[in-house]
Amino acid sequence: MDEAHDYDQESVVLHEKLHGKLSVASRVPLESRRDLSLAYTPGVAQVCLEIAKDPQRVHTLTLKHNTVAVVSDGSAILGIGNLGAAAAIPVMEGKAVLFKEFANVDAFPICLATQKTDEIIAAVRAIAPVFGGINLEDISSPRCFEVEDALKDIGIPVFHDDQHGTAVVVLAALLNAVRYTRKDLSTCRVVFNGSGASALACARLLIVCGERGLLPKLGDLILVDSKGIVHKNRTDLHAHKRELAEAGNVEGRTGTLSDAMVGADVFIGLSTGNLVTAQMIHAMNKDPIVFPMANPTPEIMPDLALAAGAAIVGTGRSDFPNQINNVLAFPGIFRGALDAGAITINDEMKIEAARALAAYVKEVGVEKILPDPLDRKVAYHVAEAVAAAARRTGVCRT
Amino acid sequence: MDEAHDYDQESVVLHEKLHGKLSVASRVPLESRRDLSLAYTPGVAQVCLEIAKDPQRVHTLTLKHNTVAVVSDGSAILGIGNLGAAAAIPVMEGKAVLFKEFANVDAFPICLATQKTDEIIAAVRAIAPVFGGINLEDISSPRCFEVEDALKDIGIPVFHDDQHGTAVVVLAALLNAVRYTRKDLSTCRVVFNGSGASALACARLLIVCGERGLLPKLGDLILVDSKGIVHKNRTDLHAHKRELAEAGNVEGRTGTLSDAMVGADVFIGLSTGNLVTAQMIHAMNKDPIVFPMANPTPEIMPDLALAAGAAIVGTGRSDFPNQINNVLAFPGIFRGALDAGAITINDEMKIEAARALAAYVKEVGVEKILPDPLDRKVAYHVAEAVAAAARRTGVCRT
Repeated sequence: MDEAHDYDQESVVLHEKLHGKLSVASRVPLESRRDLSLAYTPGVAQVCLEIAKDPQRVHTLTLKHNTVAVVSDGSAILGIGNLGAAAAIPVMEGKAVLFKEFANVDAFPICLATQKTDEIIAAVRAIAPVFGGINLEDISSPRCFEVEDALKDIGIPVFHDDQHGTAVVVLAALLNAVRYTRKDLSTCRVVFNGSGASALACARLLIVCGERGLLPKLGDLILVDSKGIVHKNRTDLHAHKRELAEAGNVEGRTGTLSDAMVGADVFIGLSTGNLVTAQMIHAMNKDPIVFPMANPTPEIMPDLALAAGAAIVGTGRSDFPNQINNVLAFPGIFRGALDAGAITINDEMKIEAARALAAYVKEVGVEKILPDPLDRKVAYHVAEAVAAAARRTGVCRT
Repeated sequence: MDEAHDYDQESVVLHEKLHGKLSVASRVPLESRRDLSLAYTPGVAQVCLEIAKDPQRVHTLTLKHNTVAVVSDGSAILGIGNLGAAAAIPVMEGKAVLFKEFANVDAFPICLATQKTDEIIAAVRAIAPVFGGINLEDISSPRCFEVEDALKDIGIPVFHDDQHGTAVVVLAALLNAVRYTRKDLSTCRVVFNGSGASALACARLLIVCGERGLLPKLGDLILVDSKGIVHKNRTDLHAHKRELAEAGNVEGRTGTLSDAMVGADVFIGLSTGNLVTAQMIHAMNKDPIVFPMANPTPEIMPDLALAAGAAIVGTGRSDFPNQINNVLAFPGIFRGALDAGAITINDEMKIEAARALAAYVKEVGVEKILPDPLDRKVAYHVAEAVAAAARRTGVCRT
């Protein structure tokens, strides 16, 4: 059954009927002159003056306290690709309602009519005043790295969910899969297939946290892209891939995905469908952990992977067990960042989010390595851990 | 009693308690996997593809259908002045909740961290995709003219409320005051005091509509700024003032506000307090119409104006009769523009908004020239007239 096919037309009908999924609401009464005079003129003038006198008060006197922008240029929409700003709106509206429903974060979609990196950066800087955080979404690699990097000093968290949200949930799934299979991260050989933003960010999080002692240093990490293993002697690597080539692939392997899979403990796919064979699973180490997360068609179908010897399988799809779904991460991460008044979302906050997600599952099972994405309590557990990490690492506004 | 003083502290306390006045809300259920699959992935991908195939569908498939941005750079906040983006947020949030409460227009505040005209223009162009209209607010003159003019081709209405909303409500008040005093617009001599955005836009609307036959051509219109009467021989006039100097002041008067007021039928003040004396009212024509709209202190207090012979007095304040309040205009104007799918808000739409407001008052009285700003039905009457004018003048998306 093609998961995507069932919902397509019904989704279009729903959106056409509703004309969008997000509305705004007033949190103040506006029935009397007095109401108007407090919420608006003349009383509101004093609120403006207070902010002018003490700019930090914008965080407690306005919606900046609880509001996040979901920003895209439509250049990498879901698995579809570059369709531009207007076509991105349904996804960004959807993301915004997920933020609100799962973590009571007020989120608003901003789809930019430009795909030039400098113009994206300028636009986000320009609109930042009303927001307590920026969630970048569906901006293609490698521009997404430049955009996020350029915005790291604007005083509010700027977080590309395709990168870091995915990294957090994958890490949570990995921590529990390792727990289940009784493996040891420090001896795990991890293979990533895919070189988009999410694959690079996942791999980077594992590597950097290993180097910083926030996680065990992995046995090995090999990245494979469309040309094969990403190794030091390749001359076509951009900076982010080179960093991973140098930090991992301890044996200096070259060749294809098949070559990388020999003796691997973990396969993480963030690429496209039908790239992993049963033989590749057979060639992996005992009790292999297999996360073929390509959407809509995984790199290998779960039943095939299990039949070939996989101990645990997780995908991006909701119609298989162990859905590795970003909705487990981004609501709670921003909830925690806003609650703590964090100016950034750093690696410690991401790790603690992943640990909180993993720990939420009391009894890890072959079909239970992550919480249920529909469990409304998850985001608040994640938020608590993220806020604590923000305070502990001193990244909160004073 | 100083109107402003009573509400200041209470307003600050309210904003501090609530942390802002605006929240978002989901319009779709998100309880089950099925709900998620229709509102978000995988179903939403088809909605994106439909928009990519037929871009106009963005207006029916997304929040663009009903959403307006309230955009400011904080350079002319209310009567306070240039305090910048953060200090503007309470006003823009307030405006957004008024849009929602009065006309069910979903509005979101955008306060820009730049005051450079080209950067403001670029930012609005960049964020335009999710919006069905842009309400510019509290951007100082003359930059507001350049900004609005540069954005007139972006395919959705861009409307500086300080200019045009004020013009609409002033025109409505004038139409009813003229009705009450049995004057004839074509013999009325109108004096404007003030040369900010709202004064210039009000004056311009009257002049242009007279030239185009949408309204009777006024007997005369004299603009007075801080240097005195704006006349053709002055060398310090920017283009907008010059246009008014040449279109009006038929006698070529020079001098001060006092000189302008001699024989005037209508005084409209959009300047500062305490500039108009009882003598100036005495020097006006019989049954003078006096709208001293400076906030918080009118150009002349209503009781003084009435004692000096004014037939009708209207101000910007809620504690005097005949409040000339923009909230009577902007919600209905945008409601009508969105309902008609208008790509702009043209002079015909503004005139019809003003006529609808004036006609809403069945029995005009000395303390009743405008509807009650709190009357929730007004916006929908205005919207109907505005939408009809949009369709009639062919400015709707096909």
